[in-house]
Amino acid sequence: MTYGGRIQRVRARMSELGIDVLLLSVGPDLPYLTGYEAMPLERLTMLVLPRTGDAQLVVPRLEAPRVRRRPELFGIVTWEETDDPVALVAGMIRRSARRVAIGDHTWARFLLDLQRAVPSCVFSRASEVVAPIRMVKDNDEVAALTRAAHAVDGVARDMRAVGFGGRTELAVHRELVDRMLAAGHERSNFAIVAAGANAASAHHEPTATRTIANGDLVLCDFGGTMDGYCSDITRMFHVGEPPNEVRDVYAVLVAAQESGVRAATVGTPCEEVDAAARSVIADAGFGENFVHRVGHGIGAEAHEDPYMVAGNTRALEPGYAFSVEPGIYFPERFGMRLEDIVVATTDGPVRLNVAPRDIAIVA
Amino acid sequence: MTYGGRIQRVRARMSELGIDVLLLSVGPDLPYLTGYEAMPLERLTMLVLPRTGDAQLVVPRLEAPRVRRRPELFGIVTWEETDDPVALVAGMIRRSARRVAIGDHTWARFLLDLQRAVPSCVFSRASEVVAPIRMVKDNDEVAALTRAAHAVDGVARDMRAVGFGGRTELAVHRELVDRMLAAGHERSNFAIVAAGANAASAHHEPTATRTIANGDLVLCDFGGTMDGYCSDITRMFHVGEPPNEVRDVYAVLVAAQESGVRAATVGTPCEEVDAAARSVIADAGFGENFVHRVGHGIGAEAHEDPYMVAGNTRALEPGYAFSVEPGIYFPERFGMRLEDIVVATTDGPVRLNVAPRDIAIVA
Repeated sequence: MTYGGRIQRVRARMSELGIDVLLLSVGPDLPYLTGYEAMPLERLTMLVLPRTGDAQLVVPRLEAPRVRRRPELFGIVTWEETDDPVALVAGMIRRSARRVAIGDHTWARFLLDLQRAVPSCVFSRASEVVAPIRMVKDNDEVAALTRAAHAVDGVARDMRAVGFGGRTELAVHRELVDRMLAAGHERSNFAIVAAGANAASAHHEPTATRTIANGDLVLCDFGGTMDGYCSDITRMFHVGEPPNEVRDVYAVLVAAQESGVRAATVGTPCEEVDAAARSVIADAGFGENFVHRVGHGIGAEAHEDPYMVAGNTRALEPGYAFSVEPGIYFPERFGMRLEDIVVATTDGPVRLNVAPRDIAIVA
Repeated sequence: MTYGGRIQRVRARMSELGIDVLLLSVGPDLPYLTGYEAMPLERLTMLVLPRTGDAQLVVPRLEAPRVRRRPELFGIVTWEETDDPVALVAGMIRRSARRVAIGDHTWARFLLDLQRAVPSCVFSRASEVVAPIRMVKDNDEVAALTRAAHAVDGVARDMRAVGFGGRTELAVHRELVDRMLAAGHERSNFAIVAAGANAASAHHEPTATRTIANGDLVLCDFGGTMDGYCSDITRMFHVGEPPNEVRDVYAVLVAAQESGVRAATVGTPCEEVDAAARSVIADAGFGENFVHRVGHGIGAEAHEDPYMVAGNTRALEPGYAFSVEPGIYFPERFGMRLEDIVVATTDGPVRLNVAPRDIAIVA
């Protein structure tokens, strides 16, 4: 869909919700609607998008040359180093606005300043307006997510031939980052490498002190951004043959992930995707060892709506893209997770990741 | 200074300002006070630091294993995937707080949720509490900034022997990033490479389409983070001998930067550092071509208080660290900037960067 089409849909939703003006700064909503990404710095960049009438991008003069001009979408208002950009934005919305939606990631300092500048306005989250639109990926977006998924699939597959033993978690982390970049990602967003007991912490940070050794089960969870869309995959590696206990627990994990993916049909509430994976793990007696939700939406952000979590009754729509990533963790011992990105379609759930899902036995 | 000492100073300042509780999430204030950095994700992490009584770190259970326990500084309160962390924080502050300072970089969505949860509280920026403390770098922090500065000095110096001609801006950008990492930075924050007319845009993004050629003046402005503290340097390169016009304008720039640095004595208002550099450029007739403030503070953040800008009357204190980086830009033609990090000391301004400041003539 074009930027213009997206803005039209956003405005329709603003009407539905009674939002008079949308304010977007740092974060993915602004590039989603305009192609321009604000620099995450102290100089305010803000799109002022009224429900009707022209949108204006307020931008520091210094950064104005970075903006690709799209007069059909927005005008450009620059401010000088000694101007007050909050006063500028406040002046634009004061005329008419009462209900203002502001980008979820906007810095609190700017929201506080704006609230003081336009005390009669009621502020709410921009995601209430934009998220339901962003959640539905169109064909181009699914294609971009698929390319990113296949890039990390290649990395996951190639890592099966790599030696892990004798290297630190940090060394393997760096190799993952290098390989993601070599595979076409413009940036790595994270690359968790967790060996043995370290994998019992779901968000473990790779260390330069933990050397991977024979008998270690190693969790690799990595992803980045490619052409503006994110990848995210988790695969397990074992140095040498895994013991039966690891194989047995892993079989439960594979079945749980399969169950979660199968449940992800159009119309199913998000929380049921979580429950479908969780019940398999609980039935095997490991319910206490699965300590997180089963998945998160993915797109321009590594984590975005919709979340596959108990309490989220939103029904899946065609074009929703999200992770299905159950995990089983034994504190002080070991941990495992298996993750693919899935898209809901009218033909059923489609996994974007195709790398082998068994435990890779490495040297 | 220890974390405990910093928290003591923060509490003293909360008393001065009448702030009852400080809430810190993503951004540098939290690691500055506790050593722990929140993940910039949708799961809320928040330090609740009352003016008196125990501080609590509210953290997702999933991320709790990442927290180094420091019971002398803060307790840990974990929340489960289906809990409401905002309600948890609100419950902790509701008892007694009326005036709440919240971290400047906190996501707007969390501030909005908190405001709804504790409507009787008045929120303000945490930087009003923390910035005056963070601005004064102690000896260890100056040492860290100096190490980071010397690392990029080495990169700048080594680049003088590198061939620029025939390569794209993006290729040189990548080399700068690689060299910063090789020189000990844990991450690159930016690496602007702007050739010819592209350098007339102060925040130009390196392109894969602009090939650097003989006769190009090339601006390289790069920095990263090393042991938690930032570097930032700008140096100019010319492919072949620069023409007299470039040499003449550059001589003005060097004099302006020198004037800015010399002005940076303890007790001088920040805006006078800006004026000292600006007047040299204006006197030479290029006032309209210097379109930005002369500098920004630097520390755990690449840009932080204090800013060297007209209107900032704050007087320099010993330990303030900041950039002095005048620039002269000719739209459609060329641009130049010269930047060093400077620390104000009782013995006068000290430049942390020592790389040669002349235009490097490269092949």
